[in-house]
Amino acid sequence: MKKILILGAGRSASSLITYLLSGAKKYNYEVTVADTSIEAAKQKTAGYSSARAIELDISDEKQTHEEISKADIVISMLPAFLHPKIASECVSLKKSMVTASYVSPEMKALDADARKAGIILMNEAGLDPGIDHASAMKIIDHIKVQGGKLLSFKSYTGGLIAPESNDNPWGYKFTWNPRNVVLAGQGTAKYIEKGKYSYIPYHKLFTRIEKTHVEGWGDFEGYANRDSLSYRPIYGIENIPTLIRGTLRMPGYCEAWNVFVQLGMTDDSYHLEGSEKMTWLEFTESFLPFGAGDIKQRLADYVGIPAKGKIMDMLEWVGIFANTPIILKDASPAQVLQDLLEEKWKLKAGDIDMIVMQHQFEYELGGKKKFLTSSLVVKGDNAIHTAMAKTVGLPIGILTKLIITDQIKLKGVCIPIVKEIYNPLLAELEEMDIKFEEKES
Amino acid sequence: MKKILILGAGRSASSLITYLLSGAKKYNYEVTVADTSIEAAKQKTAGYSSARAIELDISDEKQTHEEISKADIVISMLPAFLHPKIASECVSLKKSMVTASYVSPEMKALDADARKAGIILMNEAGLDPGIDHASAMKIIDHIKVQGGKLLSFKSYTGGLIAPESNDNPWGYKFTWNPRNVVLAGQGTAKYIEKGKYSYIPYHKLFTRIEKTHVEGWGDFEGYANRDSLSYRPIYGIENIPTLIRGTLRMPGYCEAWNVFVQLGMTDDSYHLEGSEKMTWLEFTESFLPFGAGDIKQRLADYVGIPAKGKIMDMLEWVGIFANTPIILKDASPAQVLQDLLEEKWKLKAGDIDMIVMQHQFEYELGGKKKFLTSSLVVKGDNAIHTAMAKTVGLPIGILTKLIITDQIKLKGVCIPIVKEIYNPLLAELEEMDIKFEEKES
Repeated sequence: MKKILILGAGRSASSLITYLLSGAKKYNYEVTVADTSIEAAKQKTAGYSSARAIELDISDEKQTHEEISKADIVISMLPAFLHPKIASECVSLKKSMVTASYVSPEMKALDADARKAGIILMNEAGLDPGIDHASAMKIIDHIKVQGGKLLSFKSYTGGLIAPESNDNPWGYKFTWNPRNVVLAGQGTAKYIEKGKYSYIPYHKLFTRIEKTHVEGWGDFEGYANRDSLSYRPIYGIENIPTLIRGTLRMPGYCEAWNVFVQLGMTDDSYHLEGSEKMTWLEFTESFLPFGAGDIKQRLADYVGIPAKGKIMDMLEWVGIFANTPIILKDASPAQVLQDLLEEKWKLKAGDIDMIVMQHQFEYELGGKKKFLTSSLVVKGDNAIHTAMAKTVGLPIGILTKLIITDQIKLKGVCIPIVKEIYNPLLAELEEMDIKFEEKES
Repeated sequence: MKKILILGAGRSASSLITYLLSGAKKYNYEVTVADTSIEAAKQKTAGYSSARAIELDISDEKQTHEEISKADIVISMLPAFLHPKIASECVSLKKSMVTASYVSPEMKALDADARKAGIILMNEAGLDPGIDHASAMKIIDHIKVQGGKLLSFKSYTGGLIAPESNDNPWGYKFTWNPRNVVLAGQGTAKYIEKGKYSYIPYHKLFTRIEKTHVEGWGDFEGYANRDSLSYRPIYGIENIPTLIRGTLRMPGYCEAWNVFVQLGMTDDSYHLEGSEKMTWLEFTESFLPFGAGDIKQRLADYVGIPAKGKIMDMLEWVGIFANTPIILKDASPAQVLQDLLEEKWKLKAGDIDMIVMQHQFEYELGGKKKFLTSSLVVKGDNAIHTAMAKTVGLPIGILTKLIITDQIKLKGVCIPIVKEIYNPLLAELEEMDIKFEEKES
């Protein structure tokens, strides 16, 4: 009987754990869920006889070593910076490992040792990165096999709220880590378009949006992710003239969010002296040139939006003009803004989230130009099995099962970009209704 | 006979060395000028019998130790990050030290040991920081002694080109480190105005300018420096309602520079792939949304400036629309821009630079509101004794002399903010025509 060790029983692990536990008898394996909170681990495994819940603090090296020794494969749902340490332990104990995180240089450096140990270190096994890789590579490989020439690949993903739960002017609620949403896009977006490099500084990012239509679901707006260029070697499309990866939001979101960016409210690099003595209104005032008169008019003039209308309504709805205290002590602007938004963008009981992903390809085949879109929309089942938990957790679970049942025989540091991985992965996701709709023209 | 050791014989050391050498006989000291280039050291000391030029690489710990052992006081004109190391050596050998750099946490940590050793570590002894501290504190102390209440203190400094050498549309040439000019203002400007904190993100900085008039010299524009708030405890004015420190430029500069900022051309955080294969025009194009048509019109629309007129003329003069190759390999945008500007903003033979500093005070005295401006304008003598070399080097030289002649008896880590330092310093600077003009109303 094989043994799977899951490190971390947080919210994002729920669908993963349920998936693995439901297949335990059929595939003859046991699952141990380890968390610093034994309650969290117990809650996630309740009712399954093939499950064991344990308390484990990863900084306890002895216990961590013991638990990994007992396992055949380790899934880490812990913060990404902990992965290289766990991966080293896995390599020396000859245990395979699965994570949803990007391959770090430290992880990459373990490749040769992992091969020598005969194990796989499977990374980027979630949604984005994860399902995006698998689904894109399946199409890219297919176009190449046909003899087609890729001209353009644009890929957008958004973690959104389902239309039936969308009841605020932003069309957005926090369905994952709020801090990442507030800091999203900081740095410089880099991509290539028709053979020309393009660089967008953060303060221009939310003005450079592209309308994206998903059939049956309407329009979304996409802004470019930080580094699209690095995907060229990963996907084996070094000479593609256009490659853009981006993030989807509901229409109107980016223009309003850009106001926060312009004001400097998303800055996380310094702390506001005495923020606990400020009101939201004073917080907003501190980013405007000194002046008197209607603050909305002054803000509108400063950032170049109409003083009345949709954008201003969205800002007001969030509460940046409220005369209520901030409370957070010496916080960064981004922390203050996050605190405000967490209240406003909280999921209500019964709210359903939604993942939208769309790949857009342009290629030449037999002298003809072809267009292909491949779109995925996944809704959450409930507050536990959210679309985010499913689309991150299920591919991790599926890949883990494929590894321990020897259906994936690769060794070393891998990501799901090769046939041997993406074919069975996408096939099983389809069975679970995580299915791309293709449309060609 | 006392011995002064000067580490670093770069351009900015010329006025300092000349000043110290000219006083060597009168005050009975010897000067050793040490540099990694023996030629540079020799050139700076040529013709002075009381001077010794040596070759010294600061990474040679043995020789550095020997040279500091032989000295009574050490002046470091080396890059700031080297100062703590040299200061440690000075403390253990009981030698005083003078630098023009900001007091770093490492430097501050040496305070107690320096006192124990009976030596002074004098920092911030140049122009800005340096002369600004001394001249501001003299006025602040005077207002306090009179019983006045400070309401506002604004202080601006600019390293500029003298009007007679100003022959380009920017009113600017590089008179000091070009890299610092290109990266100037990155981060967030923080100040307080009428009791309200104010934060300006970098992408808004060059739109938030304040006109500054210097009598006899006309108008300048000032943009806020990164951290004005930290000067409140240093100057003992914790409760002042308004405190702003800024940088001066000629009128029109900031609006045009803001175009580079908006485009992302001052970004130093990433490298442009294949910049050596780009032209200046392609470089500019890479920051614009993809499109066809006149690039000037598209750029104007994107950053919100008129397609024709002064700003566009300034941009064109710099050469960002030129179809000539960049050459620099995989450079950051800031490096590319600097390379372009170094060619355009180069000092010509005979060009004279100019330092402008202005303190603006508002205070209440005997129930009356008073306004006081204190302005300093210094022009360079020639290409060697530039205004920058004089205003940075002379205060360092004067303070060094005051220390070795026991006129400054303070010990530990100091900056020129106390009477014992600023009075003799400002008096001697005045003799050398580095003199503030005060105007009250």
